[in-house]
Amino acid sequence: MKTVKRILELIDSPAELKRLGVAELTRLAAELREYIIAVVSQNGGHLAPSLGTVELTLALHSVYNSPRDKIVWDVGHQAYAHKILTGRREAFRNLRQKDGITGFPKRKESPHDAFGVGHASTSISAALGLAIARDLRGEKSHVVAVIGDGALTGGEAFEALNHAGDLGKNLVVVLNDNAMSIDKNVGALSEYLSQVRLTPKYIKAKRDVESLILSIPHIGDRVLRTASQIKDGVRSALIPGSLFEEMGFHYVGPLDGHNIELMLEVFAKVRSMTGPILVHVHTKKGKGYLPAEISPDAFHGIGAFEVATGKAVKSCTVPTYTQIFGDTLVELGEKNEKLVAITAAMPTGTGLKKFGELFPQRFFDVGIAEEHAVTLAAGLAAGGARPVAAIYSTFLQRAYDQILHDVCLQNLPVTLCLDRAGIVGEDGATHHGVFDLSYLRHIPHLSLLAPKDENELRQMLKAAIEREAPVAIRYPRGAGLGVKVQMEFQPLPWGKAEILEGEGDIAFLAIGSMVHTAEVCAARLREQGLTVRVANMRFVKPLDEELIKKWATETKGIVTLEENILAGGFGSAVLETLQGAGINLPVLRFGIGDDFVEQGTRQELFAQCGLLPEQIVEKVLAMMGARTGDENGAG
Amino acid sequence: MKTVKRILELIDSPAELKRLGVAELTRLAAELREYIIAVVSQNGGHLAPSLGTVELTLALHSVYNSPRDKIVWDVGHQAYAHKILTGRREAFRNLRQKDGITGFPKRKESPHDAFGVGHASTSISAALGLAIARDLRGEKSHVVAVIGDGALTGGEAFEALNHAGDLGKNLVVVLNDNAMSIDKNVGALSEYLSQVRLTPKYIKAKRDVESLILSIPHIGDRVLRTASQIKDGVRSALIPGSLFEEMGFHYVGPLDGHNIELMLEVFAKVRSMTGPILVHVHTKKGKGYLPAEISPDAFHGIGAFEVATGKAVKSCTVPTYTQIFGDTLVELGEKNEKLVAITAAMPTGTGLKKFGELFPQRFFDVGIAEEHAVTLAAGLAAGGARPVAAIYSTFLQRAYDQILHDVCLQNLPVTLCLDRAGIVGEDGATHHGVFDLSYLRHIPHLSLLAPKDENELRQMLKAAIEREAPVAIRYPRGAGLGVKVQMEFQPLPWGKAEILEGEGDIAFLAIGSMVHTAEVCAARLREQGLTVRVANMRFVKPLDEELIKKWATETKGIVTLEENILAGGFGSAVLETLQGAGINLPVLRFGIGDDFVEQGTRQELFAQCGLLPEQIVEKVLAMMGARTGDENGAG
Repeated sequence: MKTVKRILELIDSPAELKRLGVAELTRLAAELREYIIAVVSQNGGHLAPSLGTVELTLALHSVYNSPRDKIVWDVGHQAYAHKILTGRREAFRNLRQKDGITGFPKRKESPHDAFGVGHASTSISAALGLAIARDLRGEKSHVVAVIGDGALTGGEAFEALNHAGDLGKNLVVVLNDNAMSIDKNVGALSEYLSQVRLTPKYIKAKRDVESLILSIPHIGDRVLRTASQIKDGVRSALIPGSLFEEMGFHYVGPLDGHNIELMLEVFAKVRSMTGPILVHVHTKKGKGYLPAEISPDAFHGIGAFEVATGKAVKSCTVPTYTQIFGDTLVELGEKNEKLVAITAAMPTGTGLKKFGELFPQRFFDVGIAEEHAVTLAAGLAAGGARPVAAIYSTFLQRAYDQILHDVCLQNLPVTLCLDRAGIVGEDGATHHGVFDLSYLRHIPHLSLLAPKDENELRQMLKAAIEREAPVAIRYPRGAGLGVKVQMEFQPLPWGKAEILEGEGDIAFLAIGSMVHTAEVCAARLREQGLTVRVANMRFVKPLDEELIKKWATETKGIVTLEENILAGGFGSAVLETLQGAGINLPVLRFGIGDDFVEQGTRQELFAQCGLLPEQIVEKVLAMMGARTGDENGAG
Repeated sequence: MKTVKRILELIDSPAELKRLGVAELTRLAAELREYIIAVVSQNGGHLAPSLGTVELTLALHSVYNSPRDKIVWDVGHQAYAHKILTGRREAFRNLRQKDGITGFPKRKESPHDAFGVGHASTSISAALGLAIARDLRGEKSHVVAVIGDGALTGGEAFEALNHAGDLGKNLVVVLNDNAMSIDKNVGALSEYLSQVRLTPKYIKAKRDVESLILSIPHIGDRVLRTASQIKDGVRSALIPGSLFEEMGFHYVGPLDGHNIELMLEVFAKVRSMTGPILVHVHTKKGKGYLPAEISPDAFHGIGAFEVATGKAVKSCTVPTYTQIFGDTLVELGEKNEKLVAITAAMPTGTGLKKFGELFPQRFFDVGIAEEHAVTLAAGLAAGGARPVAAIYSTFLQRAYDQILHDVCLQNLPVTLCLDRAGIVGEDGATHHGVFDLSYLRHIPHLSLLAPKDENELRQMLKAAIEREAPVAIRYPRGAGLGVKVQMEFQPLPWGKAEILEGEGDIAFLAIGSMVHTAEVCAARLREQGLTVRVANMRFVKPLDEELIKKWATETKGIVTLEENILAGGFGSAVLETLQGAGINLPVLRFGIGDDFVEQGTRQELFAQCGLLPEQIVEKVLAMMGARTGDENGAG
């Protein structure tokens, strides 16, 4: 154990890697895995993706000179080894903790993080931008994008490949293929080919084949007219990755992404090549940790676990919002044959797995392709089906235009279910779902709902799929409140708030996850002698304007609560209503201020945003004090 | 002339086409062109795309049975013949006019418009949704998506191809290729191949080739292991469209898209085939109208013109915002070598053409790929360049996530220039840029500006590219106000409004195009004896909160004006500021209400939205009357 640790402890920057031989790098790979497993088992994180890229990371950092050469990781959940090897070995112990290092590459954190990531399919675009900037500076350096086969299905990656292949800039795209075959021809061909490809031998073999093809009598001049056309054709026939070749990339691969020696050799050759190059690498998700190799999905992103067994440290007995959503949708799907469920590469994360198993004809996992997911839903609705698209709040940002232009402009009955809305915790700034109320509220025809608890999610889902218009429901990550789930569906008056307490001088208007906080605040304020009324608003849109106007005239102040950015959000809608009605009274809005929120526990981040009950109570008391002062003329 | 008209006058639905022979359809094609040219020369519209698809439209409607069979047009600017042939022959005279028919397919307008469009690259997703819905209903019918080679570069189209090819549903995608070659192998192969492909002869030829390839000695078992792999390989080698074949589509083509007889024959065969099929059709943009054939770009989307010459009926002497933007950027680009310009298939429309000609190394047209355009800009900025991405407001909706996640989260100095912001007029609901203030305002780190006139656009652009943070500038379509453009750049205090009139009881806070309206309103109100102050706010973010708070305490009422949806927009930001400061006073917000705006002239649509000076003045007078009433205790 002591000897094993020794190499990693010597690595403070990628420069040190260049002195190591293959045997040492192989030992270092084992040390990295051990360290990653140790930290993630404590802090949680993206284990399986990062275990799969250990050798690839070592090879890239051995051959390229970061930070002069730029390595752009797509999504970035596979970059733990990269973080450890680029001066963050000790800091890595605070992975995903507040004020610790983030779970994804981040420019502010290190010069080795060439581009910040979190959402998928951006790396080729970013890397191309870096390559163009490099050329404008007249600098000789390398830019490498590392993208998984999953992220490659995202349309933006295709847009970037299309542009990069056309431009011809020096740019390396590493396709980290850990499961699916992207190119149908690829899976069938051996590593041998990638090797010969780089040598003159391959060139000769190709020429021989070409002349043979030329002599085939059945095709005729009319079809195969010129030698260059034939060359293209032959390339497609004989070489994997013809899809990439057709897009203007020189294809190299596939390689065994756990064979350090092979990768060192290939990347050293690739480094001296010019133009856009795609290096296809096969890796195994979870490599080197048996529980993760067996269940790479379960170990994709996980909480703390026991290293020996792979078992989660804490298991929650309260069902999650995701579970209630999934179970309810199955129940609704049994009764309604028009119901169709769509996910973008998140069947487990969104709770749709069971629906998919029971109704395979009515379940569609489109891969990482949120834009297509939403327009597909619109097409289904136009064809008379009842689509429910479940996508994390942060990822649905990708489909803003499709929601507006394809779903809402046509007023089609699509139900959008936004899981992981609000503050998600340890995944940090790239993953918080704190913008959805603002990016959805201004879209005409769309109803926008948020349940106060898991039972209400169930009721809202039922009501949404019965509606002849688009509906979005947003709900938080993780466990519900543990309330009783009513199996009998309850009516949900559209656009009407639920009054939890109808009398009092201060009116709390809360949405979604903040309804519970409102109740806690109300109880504390009552202890202070104030009277408080509380509404679970349920709908950000259509907003219960009638109630707001009534309460505004009956109370001394309004308090709005939302787990969303304040600008343009729920509280902003309340202000618009009051202005429209010409009512003026003191309003306090609680939500997230005008900045991105970094990682931490939900509790820590709530405190940072001033959303804890004690923080809210203090401000409400201050407002009411000021208000009382005003009335007494003492202000 | 009279005889020529006769056929078109008989066509009230696609059913009538089925009785016509090739000669009659050819005559009908000429009639359609003549009619389209006549109407568009009066009303303006998308001439060149629609002239290019006349024969294709006739062939599709002759072979398929719309509306039972669904035809989904991508973007929809090529669908004029479709509109005319599907019961809208007479209505077509009111093309793009208020309460007339829209310039794009629209579900509400006709059952033959299977899916509403306007933005690019959505048709395959929508068609796949319709195909799945059809299969769930157990119905036998056909779904056809028609997509241009331009729209195919949009990532969503790739996402959809990828999914459709995998699912294997019966679905026809017609690639309407009017310029570029998508697939490098394609251009070289003849129509002959597409013909033999459909017959048993082709199958035999293919088998012969396969056995020959198998016998080639230089490849060896190790590379070409199984017969199925070889088949795939051979297909790529011999058949155009291998890119589509690799994505699971059966490829047919390329065909001459102006040869009706050929298309009737091919589509009749395609109709009996199963699975996903891509039919590649070559057409000529502007076909049949010489000025449009010569300058398809100029006749893509145009205003009224003289049929005989192709010359625009009215030419404006006042420079457009677009021109000022383009000229200023050239000037800035001469001085700053880091400046890079990006457009998504709109070099002329965004005014970047000259920049591209002068600085080809610093100009990038990425095609219809807004997502990539924005992340590319982020990558360029991360590499030290100064990217300016000019994209129409409505199309930038596609890149909402990239603006938030790639540009603003990393606080990168990218300048986004949103042309065609606000109400665009005749292009209608799919094209108005009336959401940008709301979808951008809530994004942290982003500055959001709108100039009051073309001169201010020039000054803002200069200030934006000097800023070390992301900036978005939105400005309207068309001619500026005709003000003097100051060649000497003026300082632009960041986040500060320009006070146009600093004294008065009513405060007008206006942004962008509405500043001029505010001044007109102020003048009229002064005629009525009121005193009015006016601020050109310049910045929606950072908002000049200091001024707002000051004026709020000094006046009797605030009026906000914006050419944007009211929810979450500029006026909403003013309300948030007042609430944050605890100031209560009457506020009137003018902007666009909670609905989509259809087509019409800008003037008509402003009237509809209540944004004309007389409408605003009336409401302000009412507010002040009420206010005066309040003060007098008379209310």
